[in-house]
Amino acid sequence: MTTYNFSAGPGVMPEEVITQIKQEFEKNEQTHMSIIEISHRSKQFQTIVTDAENKLRQLMHISDEYAVVFLQGGGSTQFEMIPLNFATNHHEIALLDSGNFAQKAAEAARELGNKVTTLNSTKNIHYQKLPLLPDDFDPMTYDYLHIVTNNTIEGVTSHQNNLPKTTGRLVADMSSNILAEPYNISDFDAIFAGGQKNLGPAGVTVAIIKKSWLAEQDVTGVGPMMRYQNHIDKQSMYNTSPVFAIYALNLVLDWVIQQGGVTEMYRRNLEKSKRLYAYLDQSEFYTAPVEASARSLTNIVFTTGDLEKDKVIAKQATEEGLFNLSGHRSVGGFRASLYNAQPMSAVDALIAFLQKVEQQA
Amino acid sequence: MTTYNFSAGPGVMPEEVITQIKQEFEKNEQTHMSIIEISHRSKQFQTIVTDAENKLRQLMHISDEYAVVFLQGGGSTQFEMIPLNFATNHHEIALLDSGNFAQKAAEAARELGNKVTTLNSTKNIHYQKLPLLPDDFDPMTYDYLHIVTNNTIEGVTSHQNNLPKTTGRLVADMSSNILAEPYNISDFDAIFAGGQKNLGPAGVTVAIIKKSWLAEQDVTGVGPMMRYQNHIDKQSMYNTSPVFAIYALNLVLDWVIQQGGVTEMYRRNLEKSKRLYAYLDQSEFYTAPVEASARSLTNIVFTTGDLEKDKVIAKQATEEGLFNLSGHRSVGGFRASLYNAQPMSAVDALIAFLQKVEQQA
Repeated sequence: MTTYNFSAGPGVMPEEVITQIKQEFEKNEQTHMSIIEISHRSKQFQTIVTDAENKLRQLMHISDEYAVVFLQGGGSTQFEMIPLNFATNHHEIALLDSGNFAQKAAEAARELGNKVTTLNSTKNIHYQKLPLLPDDFDPMTYDYLHIVTNNTIEGVTSHQNNLPKTTGRLVADMSSNILAEPYNISDFDAIFAGGQKNLGPAGVTVAIIKKSWLAEQDVTGVGPMMRYQNHIDKQSMYNTSPVFAIYALNLVLDWVIQQGGVTEMYRRNLEKSKRLYAYLDQSEFYTAPVEASARSLTNIVFTTGDLEKDKVIAKQATEEGLFNLSGHRSVGGFRASLYNAQPMSAVDALIAFLQKVEQQA
Repeated sequence: MTTYNFSAGPGVMPEEVITQIKQEFEKNEQTHMSIIEISHRSKQFQTIVTDAENKLRQLMHISDEYAVVFLQGGGSTQFEMIPLNFATNHHEIALLDSGNFAQKAAEAARELGNKVTTLNSTKNIHYQKLPLLPDDFDPMTYDYLHIVTNNTIEGVTSHQNNLPKTTGRLVADMSSNILAEPYNISDFDAIFAGGQKNLGPAGVTVAIIKKSWLAEQDVTGVGPMMRYQNHIDKQSMYNTSPVFAIYALNLVLDWVIQQGGVTEMYRRNLEKSKRLYAYLDQSEFYTAPVEASARSLTNIVFTTGDLEKDKVIAKQATEEGLFNLSGHRSVGGFRASLYNAQPMSAVDALIAFLQKVEQQA
């Protein structure tokens, strides 16, 4: 039975990358020098880090005005590093509340003693639209505006053409759609993304930081590991790096380049998601509730309208080799994650399954 | 050519574990459900975390009075989490300066606004002895005493029979000799260890925390990811866990149990290190400078007395398949790391090589 994995992350990786990892351990079964046994100070690993940084710069068109670092601790640690490094003037942050991870970031910033002002929220309509930036937004009293480009749980996305237009500093959590669709880096002052969606395995986080902004900051009282500058100065090797996770990320970046870069990923993701949304929209059995212009390409959320029925169908899907279709435990329903590594055949298999269930209903 | 890896970390892992990892990727080459593609919320991973915790409790005889959590960020992040969670009363920490990583921990605590008092240091004798606790030490004015049980760079160890005797709180950085020799957990109030020596690959850190001590703390103003309690409450899944690193750690713990536990690791490590120290001590060409009672079982430091000559010999060793014998870049000389996964045959090969060089000199 062919199996597909619709997990929202950690999730599916390119088959070619899994093969390369298998070969790495095959080759080094008895050398005591496999990728998880080499020093982070070895030339082999230093080359991997440099390569990975260069490839990410190439794929996302990141200029030298920005630093690129590989860190640990996931997006949740970035929820702390960002305010510790950048909420240093007003200690006040502006937020567009587009979902669960916007709220989590706000909570972390508040616990660190900052004020977080929610400019707009679509919580009362279950995050089925994007919260827009109020026309009267004055960035002058905030250290930055925090947004989430893709809301993994709610399936709502601020695409490049929908980004809030601000003259102030803009910070983006891009965890679940980095490399899935194009963004102009110059629109942002800081971007971060946990690894476990489009970048590679869990255990590595990417941060893209505007150097001139960082240079303005006084980070007295911030611990050394929480300062971006320390990691930048040591080229992501300030302390022992998560070697395996960065190694695998580097393989994923290779794969993205070989496939044709972000342009090609975007084309495929549009095609995959359009095919699934088109089916859901014409169906009288399923509903995709997110407003069309803000629909995610990577996390397609839908429901029959009956959460108990959704659970039964998701369980049946598992039995037929379609794994991890349940929505996040906080919202229920279905969520099909179509990350870069998800093949079109997975979408076709999913639609065929959903059609069969619909016809039997 | 048989090759051996004497890296101080990340370093050698058991061959059996490398084989199991290879098999995992072989089995899941096309299922899209390999260990790096499954959700950290999946039953499969939750079982791995529970198993790993239980095995570590069994191996180290950790009672329910202590919490065990798996974190990210290495020992360096613990240099910050420990003071953030425990230097909450006096904001003053006592330190026994036994080497580089004791100093790094002190530096991080100071940057966070704490006073760090060095009770004793052996820096002026190049850390070739352990700094002893002064007889007049009064723990009442310090939040805790910080020690490093094994100093990876200097090769000097506070064995169980050499631990400082204090009625105050004791925190131990056990990064490079956890599971290598027995310690009584009840002597400590907090223990931490980066993964990449005896536990598994880089990217996971273990913390063992006395619950009653943690319960006393007011951690207002500390970020959520830096609070031990959050990770404890969510059983090491507060945010996306480093799935692969914990998976591999769990395999290493299995291996240690199968081999006979810490008792057997200790027996082997004593035998390996004794054999190497015995050779070095009788040699007129090499010197092992650390005082006998404080010698590390895991990191054996030695030199010809001529750092340039040491470099040439280490390079020659590499050509003969004996990798990573150079001392830390801050001290030079040789360092042979004999972690649990290092076989006796590696020690014998190293001694044969060193003898050959000595005879040719």
